[in-house]
Amino acid sequence: MASGLPSVRGKVFLLGAGPGDPGLLTLRALEALQQADVVLYDYLVNPVALRHARPDAEVICLGKHGKAGGSRIWTQEEINARLIADAEAGKKVARLKSGDPTVFGRLNEELSALQEAGIDYEVTPGVTAGLAAGAFAGIPVTHREFASAVALITGQETKSKTESNLDYEALARFPGTLVFYMGVTTVKIWAPKLIEAGKPADTPVAIIRRCSFPDQLTITTTLGKAAEVLTPSERIRPPVIVIVGGVVRQRETLSWFESRPLFGKRVLMTRPEESGGELTRLLEERGADVIVHPVIEIGPPEDAEPLNAALERLGDYQWVLFSSANGVRGFFDALYASGRDARALGAARVAAVGPGTAEAMLKYGVRCDVT
Amino acid sequence: MASGLPSVRGKVFLLGAGPGDPGLLTLRALEALQQADVVLYDYLVNPVALRHARPDAEVICLGKHGKAGGSRIWTQEEINARLIADAEAGKKVARLKSGDPTVFGRLNEELSALQEAGIDYEVTPGVTAGLAAGAFAGIPVTHREFASAVALITGQETKSKTESNLDYEALARFPGTLVFYMGVTTVKIWAPKLIEAGKPADTPVAIIRRCSFPDQLTITTTLGKAAEVLTPSERIRPPVIVIVGGVVRQRETLSWFESRPLFGKRVLMTRPEESGGELTRLLEERGADVIVHPVIEIGPPEDAEPLNAALERLGDYQWVLFSSANGVRGFFDALYASGRDARALGAARVAAVGPGTAEAMLKYGVRCDVT
Repeated sequence: MASGLPSVRGKVFLLGAGPGDPGLLTLRALEALQQADVVLYDYLVNPVALRHARPDAEVICLGKHGKAGGSRIWTQEEINARLIADAEAGKKVARLKSGDPTVFGRLNEELSALQEAGIDYEVTPGVTAGLAAGAFAGIPVTHREFASAVALITGQETKSKTESNLDYEALARFPGTLVFYMGVTTVKIWAPKLIEAGKPADTPVAIIRRCSFPDQLTITTTLGKAAEVLTPSERIRPPVIVIVGGVVRQRETLSWFESRPLFGKRVLMTRPEESGGELTRLLEERGADVIVHPVIEIGPPEDAEPLNAALERLGDYQWVLFSSANGVRGFFDALYASGRDARALGAARVAAVGPGTAEAMLKYGVRCDVT
Repeated sequence: MASGLPSVRGKVFLLGAGPGDPGLLTLRALEALQQADVVLYDYLVNPVALRHARPDAEVICLGKHGKAGGSRIWTQEEINARLIADAEAGKKVARLKSGDPTVFGRLNEELSALQEAGIDYEVTPGVTAGLAAGAFAGIPVTHREFASAVALITGQETKSKTESNLDYEALARFPGTLVFYMGVTTVKIWAPKLIEAGKPADTPVAIIRRCSFPDQLTITTTLGKAAEVLTPSERIRPPVIVIVGGVVRQRETLSWFESRPLFGKRVLMTRPEESGGELTRLLEERGADVIVHPVIEIGPPEDAEPLNAALERLGDYQWVLFSSANGVRGFFDALYASGRDARALGAARVAAVGPGTAEAMLKYGVRCDVT
């Protein structure tokens, strides 16, 4: 590019990915992901959402929290520097954060750095995990009769995890539902402190792990027993959301997500994604965890010669029969490659067998004589 | 249907529509809307979202709140009865609520009625207005240094609006940001009560009206002056979100949405939606309020005779020239209607003029000789 011409301006899109289910991505976030040259995502983001990125986009995970087996976690300074460098190079950068970036997402740290560097950005809020946990566990967090407010509280506001800056007396008196983010490792602090501060020990508590995922786990207990139940174990490890308050009792009747007929069942789908999509959707709607692992793949023939030879003599045939939509695509790909088009079928009569075959032919301009 | 066969089961999809921008709809909500036989939506939902409904879906507004010019508002009992009746009739019902249905959305009242009636349902959470207001006003509501919690509070929890059940002492002591939903008509209660309870009168306050819409309005003030500033006027009428806390100061540097170059500008787009889409998107990304009002419409010719007469004699032409993708579509529509297909072009040479014309021809199976 000639110096003196204005360079293309990059931009950073700060996107909320929602709590897990890739269907909870917003249309705005989807569009930004599809356009991005670079995608920087947090470890908690469901990798399925990354399929929306362009095949040629650079997709980078910013590291896994936790001790064992974790890759290196990027520091905030490293993330900021990368966002700025890529945007200054004219790239569109999607910065994908779990849940809603405005809620315990350190959004201001990244925005301030971009602002200082004069980088264009926009924020797309997402569905925050604390509220989604209620939706998927059958616990609407507000209630007209007994919860006029809901508080979202981080369970990890201190580094030491042995003390807390939170004002538990104020939280204990809070006139509504309490929702703790990531409260599993700090439960031995907040649960007894809330009771000490006057919150009744029999206040209902729900612990929701991996909300909106097919393996969502919900455990209900009381504030008095929470520290015991929540001891980090194989089953109850982060990320969890903890809901404290009378609203938890609604779950007894409203637990729709975990009551779906196929919840907890894992289904292996061996059809190719293109043809198995509708069945996958129907199974997932009924709660199944569908693993898509195609065992057949539709591709071009290994030896193109027989098809090309038949195409050469296309004028000799009285009938041409198509047996699948894939066959139609293969026929026209080869026909176009040979420099010809639908008119090469000439006077031959055309027949279609199998679902979707005649429709596929019509898309290529040819009406079948027999279907 | 023969009695004895199981009837098709209906289902109710409770969907969060987000705060306003139709791009904040989730993919799950979009899919449910696209499938629904009936859509019941609240007045505050942006009607643009309804365009995703099927053309033959029954789309019903449940009434407008407020005194003047308001249509009748459906009671909760009427809504419940309608949801149940439609689902029992085998219909898929999309119940579209503004924001997130779990936050001040009376979700439990509808879910309980469905549960009792034995109706299938699922909940799709949305982006709640209180958090989105922060994202779009440049006010991330949590902050690692000074806001480890955020409380979402309804400003309308009592019918009388002259007194309140909220514990203002607890709210005043709340260790984080306070977000009031619909606080405009009750500001004369909550603002002085918070000050009385010990919240400093100089606490920053932001009032955000129609967040995420092109005419979003944000006013910043302090708790002491809020009652004065918030007096319902032509400009500051519901729906508003009020954010109270130190996080409001971030807006001084992070107000990205209202700083976009075309924010506050209304642009009339006279091209048809199909061809003006990309320009509309670019203008909206820069903050413009784009009104799409096509002044031309591409349609079939009023008199089909000349085209059909030409098609009859298609074999007589040495050349057929296509001048636009729309022309290609019209040609093939008429050709198919006459019972023929691409092969009717026979030996004529085919030329394409104009952007996209040759590509459109290839979709119909015909490669152009000249482009």
